Amino acid sequence: MSEVLSTDPRTGATTGTGIKQHTPAEVDEAATRARAAFNDLATRDRAWRTRLLRAMADELDERRSEIVRTADAETGLGEARLNGELTRTCFQLRLFADTVAEGSYLEATIDHAGETEVGPRPDLRRMLIPLGPVVVFGASNFPLAFSVPGGDTAAALAAGCPVIVKAHQSHPRTAELCGSALAAAAKALGAPDGIIAVVYGREAGARLVQHPEVTAVGFTGSRGGGRALLDLINQRPDPIPFYGELSGINPLVVTEEAAAERGAEIGTGLAGSFTLGAGQFCTKPGLAFVPRTDAGDRLLESLSEAVTASGAQVLLNKNIWESFASGADYLSSLSGVTGVSSGAAGEGNGFTAQVRLLSIDATAVDDRVVDECFGPLLLAVRYSGREELLGALARLEPSLTATVHLGEEEAASSRELLDELRELSGRLVVDGYPTGVAVAWAQHHGGPWPATNAVHTSVGPTAIRRFLRPYAWQNAPAAVLPPELRDEPAAIPRRVDGVLTLPATG
Amino acid sequence: MSEVLSTDPRTGATTGTGIKQHTPAEVDEAATRARAAFNDLATRDRAWRTRLLRAMADELDERRSEIVRTADAETGLGEARLNGELTRTCFQLRLFADTVAEGSYLEATIDHAGETEVGPRPDLRRMLIPLGPVVVFGASNFPLAFSVPGGDTAAALAAGCPVIVKAHQSHPRTAELCGSALAAAAKALGAPDGIIAVVYGREAGARLVQHPEVTAVGFTGSRGGGRALLDLINQRPDPIPFYGELSGINPLVVTEEAAAERGAEIGTGLAGSFTLGAGQFCTKPGLAFVPRTDAGDRLLESLSEAVTASGAQVLLNKNIWESFASGADYLSSLSGVTGVSSGAAGEGNGFTAQVRLLSIDATAVDDRVVDECFGPLLLAVRYSGREELLGALARLEPSLTATVHLGEEEAASSRELLDELRELSGRLVVDGYPTGVAVAWAQHHGGPWPATNAVHTSVGPTAIRRFLRPYAWQNAPAAVLPPELRDEPAAIPRRVDGVLTLPATG
Repeated sequence: MSEVLSTDPRTGATTGTGIKQHTPAEVDEAATRARAAFNDLATRDRAWRTRLLRAMADELDERRSEIVRTADAETGLGEARLNGELTRTCFQLRLFADTVAEGSYLEATIDHAGETEVGPRPDLRRMLIPLGPVVVFGASNFPLAFSVPGGDTAAALAAGCPVIVKAHQSHPRTAELCGSALAAAAKALGAPDGIIAVVYGREAGARLVQHPEVTAVGFTGSRGGGRALLDLINQRPDPIPFYGELSGINPLVVTEEAAAERGAEIGTGLAGSFTLGAGQFCTKPGLAFVPRTDAGDRLLESLSEAVTASGAQVLLNKNIWESFASGADYLSSLSGVTGVSSGAAGEGNGFTAQVRLLSIDATAVDDRVVDECFGPLLLAVRYSGREELLGALARLEPSLTATVHLGEEEAASSRELLDELRELSGRLVVDGYPTGVAVAWAQHHGGPWPATNAVHTSVGPTAIRRFLRPYAWQNAPAAVLPPELRDEPAAIPRRVDGVLTLPATG
Repeated sequence: MSEVLSTDPRTGATTGTGIKQHTPAEVDEAATRARAAFNDLATRDRAWRTRLLRAMADELDERRSEIVRTADAETGLGEARLNGELTRTCFQLRLFADTVAEGSYLEATIDHAGETEVGPRPDLRRMLIPLGPVVVFGASNFPLAFSVPGGDTAAALAAGCPVIVKAHQSHPRTAELCGSALAAAAKALGAPDGIIAVVYGREAGARLVQHPEVTAVGFTGSRGGGRALLDLINQRPDPIPFYGELSGINPLVVTEEAAAERGAEIGTGLAGSFTLGAGQFCTKPGLAFVPRTDAGDRLLESLSEAVTASGAQVLLNKNIWESFASGADYLSSLSGVTGVSSGAAGEGNGFTAQVRLLSIDATAVDDRVVDECFGPLLLAVRYSGREELLGALARLEPSLTATVHLGEEEAASSRELLDELRELSGRLVVDGYPTGVAVAWAQHHGGPWPATNAVHTSVGPTAIRRFLRPYAWQNAPAAVLPPELRDEPAAIPRRVDGVLTLPATG
C-alpha cells in the first residue's frame, strides 16, 4: 500500500512519514484485536477504567512538546492554540474518569419483585453496558481534541469500549504520536493490546464501518463525508449507531436594540469569532443578521475594520483551501451578494487565504447561501424588522448553535425569535459567540440534522451515553449481577423501586 | 381511496368499516396539524402534560368494554388477555405521568460561570426538550399495548411530542375507537387538534416517515417491515431517528443441572410461554437448548405432552397465518429437523394453526433455523456439553431476550455462558420465561440488531428518552430559561456544578 504523506500547510511542502495505509487484512486484524480487548475490558471494574483515563491524560501531558510541535507543523494552527487544545483533551479525559467514578451514567435501577396494580412483577435490574468496539474518525480541524485523542475516544473508552481511530490524512504524524501515547499509558496498566489502535487510509475507514466486529461509529467532519459513512452503515446487514457531527451555518442574530446599545463592540467580537482558528470551527458563525439601521451600519463598520486589519490565514490542507476559495468565489458571484471587505492576501506556496466579509439582504436569503463555507468567511444579512428576520431564519437548516444578541430589556419580549432559534439549533448563545465549546456537564454539542444525526451530544460527560446500551437482568441471583446492581448499599446514584437515591456521604 | 376492511380471524369473515385509507393530501394535513400542535404544546407546562396522560388513561378505562369487544373480534386474542393489555396500557400512561412529574428524565443540568483549569467557563444550562411530531406504527400483535395506545404513543406524548399513529390494517376499528378516546381526553383538556391522529393505509405510512414535519418514528413489527421503513428514512435529506423493535429468536437455555433438578416443571412452563398469545409475542422463546441427557429427555417429554394437549390457536390475520404455515413447513422439511409433537388442528375458515414442537441437534444449528417463526412453534436444540452449547449460541443473532435455567449452585460458575447470552440480548431472564414484559423503571425492551436498531428501550419510563434531544443555553438570562433551569430551588433532580442533587423533601 502507498505511504502516507505529511504536508506543512504554511509552505505546501510534502514529506514522507514512513506510515503505510492499512491493508484490508490489517484492518480486520485491528477489529479482531478490538473485540478481544472488549472481552478483556468486561472483566475490569470502573476503578481500573478511571486509572486508565487519567494515565492517558498524564502520558499526553508528558509528551506535550513533541505532540504540539508536530501538530503545528501539520496544521499551521499555532502552538498557543494547540497547547490549549491538548490541555482541553487532558481535562476531558480526567473529567470522564470522574464521570466513571461517580457512576450516575450507569442509570443503575433496581425494581424488587412485588405486587403491582397490573399483577406481580419479577425482580428487574437495569444498567447501561458498553456496546463493543467503536470506530472514531479523526477531524482535520481539531488534531488533538476531535481526533486520535478527543471527545469520541475519551467517551468510548470511558464507556468500556475499545477504540479504533481512522486517522485524518491531514495530520498523520500527530495521529501516530498521540496513538502511541495512549497505547503506552494503556500498556503500563496491563490493558489488552487492542484497546486503542490507529489506522490510515480512506479504504481502511470504509472497511471498518462495515466490519462485523464494530458496534458504533463516531465522526466529526463534513456533511458529505458523514452522509457517505451513514450510507455505508445502512448497507450493513446490522445497521449500527452512527454519531455524526457534521456541519452548520450557526446563525447569529443582533437585534435592533442590541446594535443600538453596543454595535461596535459586537462587530469586533464577531470578527474574532468567525476568524478563530482561521474560521475552521464547526461552530463558526457563518451568517450574521444585522439590522438595517444606523446602529447596524456602525456594527458592520467595526466588523469590516477588523476584517481589513486581519492577516492572511493558513488553512489546514489543500482540500479545505481549494474548497474555501471556490466557495467564497461562488458566494461573491451571486446576485444580491456584495463584498464588504477582505483581509490581507497570503504569499508563497502555503494554503493561505484572505478573510472575507460579504453582505446580502434578508429577503434574498435562500438555498444558495445557507450552506457552511468552511474557513474565514462571514455573510452579513441585513434585515428590516422582526418579520423579515424571522422569514429569513425560517429558510435555514438547523445548526449546532444559534446566537442572539439582545438589548438589555429584551429577553422577556423575544419569545418568538427564541422559539425559532431553538428549532434551528442545539445550543443557544446569548450575548456571546458560539466558537469555544466548554467541556462541561451542561454542554450540548449537537442539534437536528445536518448539525448531527443523533439525539446525543458529542462534547461533555453525557457523550458517554452514545457508546452504551441498556441491559436488564430479570430474577438474577446476586452472583450473576454486576456489583452496582446488588442489594447492598452502593457508592453510586441508583433508582430503587422507582425512587432516585444518592449514595450516603460522609 | 379504498375502504379499510375488518376481518374476524376466528371465521375469516370480512366486513367494511366505513374508514377510508388516507390520501396524500390528508397525510400532509395531519403532519401540518401535528406541527402546529407541537408549537402549542411548547407553551404548556409539565403539570398539564401529566393531566393529559392521566385523562387519556381514564378515557380508555371508560370505554373499556367497547374497545375490548372490538379488539377481540378483530384479533381473536380473547377478552381476558385484551382486558389485561388495556390495563397495562392505562398503567403505563399513568406511570409516564408520574415520570413527567418527577422530572429526572429532563436531565436538568446547571453549570454556573466560573474559572476552570482550562480557563473561564460561561454559564451553561442543559435539559432535554421534545423532538417534534412523532409517527408511531401500530403492531398487529398488541392492539392495545403497542398500537394507537401503547408504549411509543405514551412515551412521545409524555416527552411533549404530538403523535400520528399509522393504524395496523389488522385491527382498524380498534384503532379508530382508541384514537377517538385519546382525542376526546385531549380535547376536554383544551389540547390542540393535532396532538393525536390516526391514519390508515400503507402508502400513508410511507409518506409520513418521509414527511419534513416528522421528526422521529417508532415501530414495532417484523424485521422486513422495519428495514423497509429505515431505508425510506435514510432517503430523506434529513435522516431522522428510527426506533424499530423488530424481531428475535429469544434463545432459552436449560443447563444439565437445571434439567436434572426440575426438568418436567421447565417443560410445562416453556410450553405455556411459547404458546402465550398463540406464540405471537416478540419475546416468544423460539429456540430452547435442552441437554441431551435423561433429564433433558424428561423435560422434552413434559413439553411434548403439553403441546399434544394444546388446542388450535387463532392467529391474528391471514398474512401471519400463511407465514406461520409456510415457516413451520419449511423448518420441518429441513434435514436434521424432526417433528416431536403437535397440538390439535383447527377447523372452519378461521386463521387457526396447530401448536408445533420440533427438534434439532445443536451441531446442526445454522442460518436456516435461527430466524423468528412468528406463531406457536418451538425448536428444541439438543446439546451435549457446554462447548457444543456455546458453539451453537455463537451462531445466533441478537434477540430482545435470552433466558437461562440454572441449577441451584450454578450461578457463580456460569460466567462464560452468561457473557455469551449478554452479547446476544437486551434482557437476561434467569429461571423464568421471557414472555411478559413488565412496565417498570428497570425494564429494558431492546437489544442489538435485529432486536432493535437503537440504544434505548421501548418499554418503561426511560423509553421517553427516544423522543427528546438535549438543548443548552449559554449565558441566558432567567427570562429566557425554562423554569426547570432557573437558579431558584427546583422540585426535580438536577445536576448543579457537577453534583447531582435531589429536590428537598418534607
